[in-house]
Amino acid sequence: MQKMNILNTQDLNFKEEFAKLLMRGKMDINSVELRVKELLEDVKNKGQEALKEHIKLFDKWEPKDFEDLKISKTQMQEAYEGLEENLKESLKIAYKRIYAFHAKQKPKTWLDFEENGNILGQIINPVQRAGLYIPGGKAAYPSSLLMNVIPALVAGVKEIVVCTPTPNNEPNHLLLAAMHLCKVSEAYKVGGASAIALLAYGVKECKKVDVISGPGNIFVATAKKLVFGEVNIDMIAGPSEIGILAQNYTNTKYLAWDLLSQAEHDEMASSILITTNKDLALKVKEEIYEILPTMQREKIARASIDTRGAIIVAKDLEEAISLMNEIAPEHLELLVENPLEILPKIKNAGAIFIGENTPEPIGDYIAGPNHTLPTGGSAKFFSPLSTEHFMKKSSLISFSKQAILELGEPCSTLAHCEGLEAHKNSVLARLNKI
Amino acid sequence: MQKMNILNTQDLNFKEEFAKLLMRGKMDINSVELRVKELLEDVKNKGQEALKEHIKLFDKWEPKDFEDLKISKTQMQEAYEGLEENLKESLKIAYKRIYAFHAKQKPKTWLDFEENGNILGQIINPVQRAGLYIPGGKAAYPSSLLMNVIPALVAGVKEIVVCTPTPNNEPNHLLLAAMHLCKVSEAYKVGGASAIALLAYGVKECKKVDVISGPGNIFVATAKKLVFGEVNIDMIAGPSEIGILAQNYTNTKYLAWDLLSQAEHDEMASSILITTNKDLALKVKEEIYEILPTMQREKIARASIDTRGAIIVAKDLEEAISLMNEIAPEHLELLVENPLEILPKIKNAGAIFIGENTPEPIGDYIAGPNHTLPTGGSAKFFSPLSTEHFMKKSSLISFSKQAILELGEPCSTLAHCEGLEAHKNSVLARLNKI
Repeated sequence: MQKMNILNTQDLNFKEEFAKLLMRGKMDINSVELRVKELLEDVKNKGQEALKEHIKLFDKWEPKDFEDLKISKTQMQEAYEGLEENLKESLKIAYKRIYAFHAKQKPKTWLDFEENGNILGQIINPVQRAGLYIPGGKAAYPSSLLMNVIPALVAGVKEIVVCTPTPNNEPNHLLLAAMHLCKVSEAYKVGGASAIALLAYGVKECKKVDVISGPGNIFVATAKKLVFGEVNIDMIAGPSEIGILAQNYTNTKYLAWDLLSQAEHDEMASSILITTNKDLALKVKEEIYEILPTMQREKIARASIDTRGAIIVAKDLEEAISLMNEIAPEHLELLVENPLEILPKIKNAGAIFIGENTPEPIGDYIAGPNHTLPTGGSAKFFSPLSTEHFMKKSSLISFSKQAILELGEPCSTLAHCEGLEAHKNSVLARLNKI
Repeated sequence: MQKMNILNTQDLNFKEEFAKLLMRGKMDINSVELRVKELLEDVKNKGQEALKEHIKLFDKWEPKDFEDLKISKTQMQEAYEGLEENLKESLKIAYKRIYAFHAKQKPKTWLDFEENGNILGQIINPVQRAGLYIPGGKAAYPSSLLMNVIPALVAGVKEIVVCTPTPNNEPNHLLLAAMHLCKVSEAYKVGGASAIALLAYGVKECKKVDVISGPGNIFVATAKKLVFGEVNIDMIAGPSEIGILAQNYTNTKYLAWDLLSQAEHDEMASSILITTNKDLALKVKEEIYEILPTMQREKIARASIDTRGAIIVAKDLEEAISLMNEIAPEHLELLVENPLEILPKIKNAGAIFIGENTPEPIGDYIAGPNHTLPTGGSAKFFSPLSTEHFMKKSSLISFSKQAILELGEPCSTLAHCEGLEAHKNSVLARLNKI
């Protein structure tokens, strides 16, 4: 059965079906919130004893003490040295390109000198300590480590700490190798909500961090939401997704592989093609179901395509673009004739991939921009993980005598109208008026 | 009784007392969370009926329908035209300066052209719709309206909507006037958690927004935290606070007024002076208690100073700076001999005010930088409200044929090592290798 939905925007039930696509990212945080709160409180109150219990329960091994939770620099180095040469080389290329891109987006302090002698400005400082959550076990991705650590490194964060779940106390050697490449010196074998608690509250010599970033399941996402405010977080992210906007000219095999590369991540992943061409729609669907039985991760990909994949046939490119802006996909491929011309019309997308030579996976690994991107439509308001998530601003105001003489009066007028007399008097004191 | 604490860093109990200052911003969100959740769910499920009930309960009037909740542009214009001339003029000066500062901080799209024909970049777009919460009733501050609306205007947000509680259906004419000045065209007389629900979920013709910003009490802060993820929010902010770093030379009256101008906001506000000079400490305390009985808002200011104010005598400037960085105050005044020299050592502060001519209230109203700032130590990771809160980024990747030929192999090596074969094949398809 080829269950993937093909929707036509002219269909009577289109609005209803499209509304379901817009709801694709909804996570039922309520269903896990109480449990996650318990886990967080447990670590907050009982520290390492709680961590040990959680690891026994979830990761099936028994750490002796806090020391036992640490990943040593030696382990990281050994893992790196054990890598095959071409893998080592590929990681280094990725590292270099990711570093270069994030260095370009690093915000800079600026000061503005006004004629009256004032200085106004915006000062940028890195946070002191960043905590990066990296999934472990079967879905341990060294690319996630690079994509989270490098922005913090570029930002100039002095203390970078990594947490990763380690089932059966068997660390993933690819993750360890990536830690060595990124010069990580503090890492703990702790996962899930417990890891978020460790980072947000601190236990033993692992002090609380300022920012937590990194992907994770619904427990991790919920824990991040709950500690938001105690620390800053990058975003609340759900399952991965791709939107492809295609006209006639493109190779349908490319489209099929690109949709499937998202689908293989997760049964909850969404792969959505919007095209103006009905024949193309049918052809891509056919290709997908031809490829599926050959895939190693067939079961996951098939479930994703069947239940959460969709092909939409739009009446023209304008309509296609407008629907895609509503969807606000994490990844957006533009396989249209003049992509740079329609670019200004694209309002909402985590990352935009232009043309046939830019398959989405190139952005997952090696292009340079971050692969931690807003999902579920949150590209309408969240941004890709960036250097800025690890930095914060302070405003600067330095008034000259001339400036306070000029602006003191209107300032005290405003303070007075708000009924804040001490505000007014603090200004009037400078004007020798009280 | 002059209860304000003077702490000496050499005192035996200093660490303990200082730890209390670090906890100053802790809000007991748990105590109101259930109630706030109820209010949010109520609006989500029952729409305008819920809003009408909440307003009857909290604001003591009975709106007939959704239309009745709106503030009209005519009302705003009339309020503006009714202002005294010097107040109108002061608001205009503030508007102009705030607009100019925020225009300078507006991020710009950039594209980077690599030698191999690649284009990488960061595209900036405003969000479509922003919701601004402005407290109303007795603590209605037109300055808050300017400080929240202007960054959204500068960002290019097309739909700006304001919510403000309006007890007894008596709108604050200063707020209305400020709305007119800022060209606000959509505003609702809804406050508290109900307003956050209206903005986050949408009711009737008020569609859900992408970003919510603005100050509020613990109910508003909790509601913002709960809807975070459905929408983006500026930050979770608590009571206002000031930290002053002072050496010998300064006018102690200035210090007293500046500390009191924070204290008059709220009994929960914190005013903290750190100085290297014990005599200065005693003098400032004396001045504060001399001024207090003359203040209109004496009761509030006295409670704040008595219970949450502190003067710390540090052994030298280094220690004073280090303590201030731990406190990470919302507002920081630097009243030291060479402020620009010590500036690089200031790591954590919402806004920094330099020198005797820059009393903190100048930043509340007229200097230009935003007055919505991180409180309670969250300046360690949050930034002042800025144009960027109303914009978001999309990464851009456009690979050339040459680039995919060069980088396809290392990319597929990485995909393979993560066990993601469709990722690998989507790249290999471009290399004609599958």
